[in-house]
Amino acid sequence: MHEIRVAVRWRDMDAYGHVNNAVYLNYLEECRDAWVDGVLGPVAESTWDFVLARVAIDFRTELTQADGEVLVRCRLDSFGQASIRVREEIVTAGGAISAEAESVIVPRDPTTGRSRPLTDEERAALEAELSSEEA
Amino acid sequence: MHEIRVAVRWRDMDAYGHVNNAVYLNYLEECRDAWVDGVLGPVAESTWDFVLARVAIDFRTELTQADGEVLVRCRLDSFGQASIRVREEIVTAGGAISAEAESVIVPRDPTTGRSRPLTDEERAALEAELSSEEA
Amino acid sequence: MHEIRVAVRWRDMDAYGHVNNAVYLNYLEECRDAWVDGVLGPVAESTWDFVLARVAIDFRTELTQADGEVLVRCRLDSFGQASIRVREEIVTAGGAISAEAESVIVPRDPTTGRSRPLTDEERAALEAELSSEEA
Amino acid sequence: MHEIRVAVRWRDMDAYGHVNNAVYLNYLEECRDAWVDGVLGPVAESTWDFVLARVAIDFRTELTQADGEVLVRCRLDSFGQASIRVREEIVTAGGAISAEAESVIVPRDPTTGRSRPLTDEERAALEAELSSEEA
Repeated sequence: MHEIRVAVRWRDMDAYGHVNNAVYLNYLEECRDAWVDGVLGPVAESTWDFVLARVAIDFRTELTQADGEVLVRCRLDSFGQASIRVREEIVTAGGAISAEAESVIVPRDPTTGRSRPLTDEERAALEAELSSEEA
Repeated sequence: MHEIRVAVRWRDMDAYGHVNNAVYLNYLEECRDAWVDGVLGPVAESTWDFVLARVAIDFRTELTQADGEVLVRCRLDSFGQASIRVREEIVTAGGAISAEAESVIVPRDPTTGRSRPLTDEERAALEAELSSEEA
Repeated sequence: MHEIRVAVRWRDMDAYGHVNNAVYLNYLEECRDAWVDGVLGPVAESTWDFVLARVAIDFRTELTQADGEVLVRCRLDSFGQASIRVREEIVTAGGAISAEAESVIVPRDPTTGRSRPLTDEERAALEAELSSEEA
Repeated sequence: MHEIRVAVRWRDMDAYGHVNNAVYLNYLEECRDAWVDGVLGPVAESTWDFVLARVAIDFRTELTQADGEVLVRCRLDSFGQASIRVREEIVTAGGAISAEAESVIVPRDPTTGRSRPLTDEERAALEAELSSEEA
């Protein structure tokens, strides 16, 4: 699992006075990108070749400027031939779950721009990550 | 169904040179908010009381500045005791589907901040919307 | 002079319920970039090599969602050895001036990343632009 | 003087691969708002009544994701009958000045929406701030 802190900015708020729904995806990507760099960086040609294919996010509790900062967590759920599924959450400093999400990342061939299968090295790194999570 | 045009802005792009994933949610909310205003505005006390509870979005094709503008569409899928499900899509001027999404909106009691059941008037308006879609 | 229309988005608002100050710079860049493309695109190697060095903006009237869209205008003020000064404004549909700005753009050598003098072709294009404004 | 750290986010970048010019204003407002809260919070009816009237910003060095975080500083420059002038800067972790700015804040009457003179208490607080800066 990877966890980061994200400071809530004034610009994250919308006219409701709470963090705009789209900004949650930016909080998630801060954590997910760091997780991808950590797990796949050592074995993939470039982590720029992993792109987001799907996000499903449930908004649980609104966030406001008063929250100050949030914790964002990301962990590997599973992976297939050509996709990686991660589970993510955004938690307030007080421990309230603000959002839960499931995202799918796919490796992309930089020359064709199309998705490609995970390499053996990438699969081994993901296998190791799954094992370490269960430990 | 509601359809709007959204002009792609330079600021929508990230360092990949394509529209950032979170920005897709802002494109969707432009259309969904207008749809909510149109369908529920005449019968709800305030459309500010409808908040987003969930979004599941599949990214199909990337968008770049060259796309110029996109079409965003939103239509009612179904509704329950206290929630409304809509289907949304973002389509390029050339007709390529860039993203498909399903969102859940819930009415909120402005005094308690908690979700509340749909009123009879709101249900009637949603029923009429479903019928008009089938027509 | 170049003029464009920018549709106000829900995400442009902050918790004050008005368009956030930083977003004004995004409105300005939509117009300025188009202006640069139009005037310098035909003669410069790449308009990507013109970067923003300074903006001074005076906020006159706040913008809200109710404004719907704004007009953004940009015109050449003057140019020097290695810089271009433009005057910009953001005007509501009702004609109220929401902001006035003065920006300085500098050409950059893409290999060194440092500013470079305007080429003769660029100066000629800017001269022609100044003349057409006076006409 | 007030100083804060702002973590650079992936979403702050534009297609140039550097932090977008408008985002600099969001970095500045994070620091300025905290400064206003600190200096005027104890004496003003509400710090929500101080709004930004002008920003002049000079971009010195571009910021990229590799910068990780930046320091943002704000200090009082001077104040008049109905306005406060602050000087601001954004500095990289390595000490390079990325931007320098001068902003003008004005107190606003919340009922009329128009600017109002600084109160005696506000002037005293600003006077004390100027003195502490010189000390």
